Amino acid sequence: MNKSTFILKGNICYTETRDQLTVMDQGYLVCHEGISRGVYPVVPEKYRDLPVTDYHDLLIVPGMSDLHVHAPQYPFRGLGMDLELLDWLNTHTFPEESRYADPEYAEKAYRIFTEDLRKSATTRAAVFATIHIPATKVLMEQLDASELKTYVGKVNMDRNCTDTLRERDAEAALESTSEWLRETAGKYPNVRPILTPRFAPTCSGALLEGLGALQREYGLPVQSHLSENLSEINWVQELFPWSSCYGNVYEHYGLFGGEAKTVMAHCVHSSDREVKLMKNSGVYVAHCPQSNINLSSGIAPVRRYLDEGIPVGLGTDMAGGANMSMFRCIVDAIGVSKLYWRLVDQGSKPLSMEEAFYLATKGGGAFFGKVGSFEEGYEVDALVLDDSGMRSTKELSTRDRLERYLYLAEEYGRLAGKYVAGKKIL
Amino acid sequence: MNKSTFILKGNICYTETRDQLTVMDQGYLVCHEGISRGVYPVVPEKYRDLPVTDYHDLLIVPGMSDLHVHAPQYPFRGLGMDLELLDWLNTHTFPEESRYADPEYAEKAYRIFTEDLRKSATTRAAVFATIHIPATKVLMEQLDASELKTYVGKVNMDRNCTDTLRERDAEAALESTSEWLRETAGKYPNVRPILTPRFAPTCSGALLEGLGALQREYGLPVQSHLSENLSEINWVQELFPWSSCYGNVYEHYGLFGGEAKTVMAHCVHSSDREVKLMKNSGVYVAHCPQSNINLSSGIAPVRRYLDEGIPVGLGTDMAGGANMSMFRCIVDAIGVSKLYWRLVDQGSKPLSMEEAFYLATKGGGAFFGKVGSFEEGYEVDALVLDDSGMRSTKELSTRDRLERYLYLAEEYGRLAGKYVAGKKIL
Repeated sequence: MNKSTFILKGNICYTETRDQLTVMDQGYLVCHEGISRGVYPVVPEKYRDLPVTDYHDLLIVPGMSDLHVHAPQYPFRGLGMDLELLDWLNTHTFPEESRYADPEYAEKAYRIFTEDLRKSATTRAAVFATIHIPATKVLMEQLDASELKTYVGKVNMDRNCTDTLRERDAEAALESTSEWLRETAGKYPNVRPILTPRFAPTCSGALLEGLGALQREYGLPVQSHLSENLSEINWVQELFPWSSCYGNVYEHYGLFGGEAKTVMAHCVHSSDREVKLMKNSGVYVAHCPQSNINLSSGIAPVRRYLDEGIPVGLGTDMAGGANMSMFRCIVDAIGVSKLYWRLVDQGSKPLSMEEAFYLATKGGGAFFGKVGSFEEGYEVDALVLDDSGMRSTKELSTRDRLERYLYLAEEYGRLAGKYVAGKKIL
Repeated sequence: MNKSTFILKGNICYTETRDQLTVMDQGYLVCHEGISRGVYPVVPEKYRDLPVTDYHDLLIVPGMSDLHVHAPQYPFRGLGMDLELLDWLNTHTFPEESRYADPEYAEKAYRIFTEDLRKSATTRAAVFATIHIPATKVLMEQLDASELKTYVGKVNMDRNCTDTLRERDAEAALESTSEWLRETAGKYPNVRPILTPRFAPTCSGALLEGLGALQREYGLPVQSHLSENLSEINWVQELFPWSSCYGNVYEHYGLFGGEAKTVMAHCVHSSDREVKLMKNSGVYVAHCPQSNINLSSGIAPVRRYLDEGIPVGLGTDMAGGANMSMFRCIVDAIGVSKLYWRLVDQGSKPLSMEEAFYLATKGGGAFFGKVGSFEEGYEVDALVLDDSGMRSTKELSTRDRLERYLYLAEEYGRLAGKYVAGKKIL
């Protein structure tokens, strides 16, 4: 029998819709060749021969998708947190990313990132590398071996950055990107390439235009940054004076949704026009609450995006965010939504636990396909959560145990099992 | 030789002033009968016979003071986070606190709280119990045995709360409080009593007046809540229509600084008049950033309090806050100060890492005496931090290792040693 065909038993929680948790205590999750055949209170007759792994009283929840994470920034996580975006990039980010010109350095640094990511709650991730092809290949190889499912992007930037990270010109950048795509094609079953213009300020129009052509040629997805910081937005307006909004720059070059599946990180200060564009283009928002705190960017209006029907997931934005934990990311998303309600707009209801959990699982998972739920037909990414270290005198419902786990995961939680697309990796 | 006379060696960090970290790599902290004799690059001649504990490359920092923590709320930490203060009190807090009428329940529940607190970075704490004398004695006994240094308050409330937590009337409440003070006097060397009117809305004028008299009689310190939530503030104004501000209620009854050493939790929405009163009275602010997020209260203007010279420390406000970790509390204080700057007042500079670290150590420590620093004459509360789980390819300064530790403590840190007033407890 296929090793990805089995049943998991435990207290199962997942979301089908944004605002409701589906809970089945002592339920059976049926996985057939990596795909869910549903969750049942008793094993249906036709599945009774499948092997059952009984996790007893532990919680079983969908794996989480980190929609925005910079692998090369992992070595300086939790450092230099007293700066805003543009100063932080020049002081901390660009010098560190420059070191990845050396594949041996990349080998060592990415090893730590990959090992820690593998042990985390993340099963899928959209990952930024650097401009360097050899280092990006190292990252792809390591991530492939980790058995996580990821998108990895070789970064493009041909202006407004330190010399050591600037691609010579648009032509060289595009040639290099094509080379990277050719050389890695089909080599890493668990890793797919994603076009990654760093952000509009470091990309010439010619580069963005060429990337749009590559997108159409290869049918690639796209990731970048959007409207994170006020100075950044003003800068984009100066660099692309014809643009109606920051997002319009990407759109103009065919890198903003539509045929190009696109995820944009942050969207903290998007104008009405930009929000409309995001909505019409089906662009995903990677909401990165902790990074938006750390870099003093602000709070993204996530409630509005949800109300508009814009797809939203969560991102750690390592190392704008310091923590790899998607549990922490969920808690931060709830927290900033409360402060947004209190300080900015009392018409904007805070995110409930259920909603934030949805964003981390099914919300962000959608970028990867049918991922982030246990409904029939979904790929089985699953986490087994052991909350026995969270001692209490209270009897708790499974729903409440999940809420508590999110808040206390780093201090008292333990990941007791991890499955990606039906494969047990922890 | 006294067991509290020794030398600790390691990478020592502490603050003397609010905005500067003192770092001595491979320094020697000399502790004589629990009191610091200073930090030196080499052991001075006169101390050369003292035993040295060499922590090699680990960090040694002052112990942390949690200025506001509710012990009986520990069983529901991380739960019910979708409510504002007054609803949260009625739905979660009061039902749980009612269970402490049973000393056997208190024994079990406080055991978990005390054990977890002992393992945390907290060396000193100002703790709320409940209204119950037997349960409060249980807590004092357990905390005394933990060798942490704490203030514990039997709570007073004689109106506007569930029947099971209401003291019959002011007279009964005061009699009960006197009884508690008499019965526990001198019994618990590590625990001191603190007057604890829950907050103005649940205390009649007669009760507050009587507590003021008790304060003068026994020279006791005071802890309570102040201006946490807008509905709460309006309610206080209705209940005490003569008051010029919420703080004026406590002041009127002699429970607001001056001779009465006082700590007030939150101070999120204090009026100008109240801030002036706090300043003139020398009232300590227990800044509880995570609780203020979780209960959608808002963000306290800590920069202003510091500029005014008001003493400030940090509090977890367990279980308004879900995390016992003072490292997390520091990071949350930095985070909300950035959002305050971004969203409320661009004249209010965010807290630096150094400032927030100061608040958690020397800032809050001042409420307990000469505590929270390694300067000569300070009681030696010390934490030994092992950051070897925070793998990186970067060489970091000790200052940067401390910053990173604060951000990553729960995921990757390890407390390798803990000293309270010169006594090694971990």
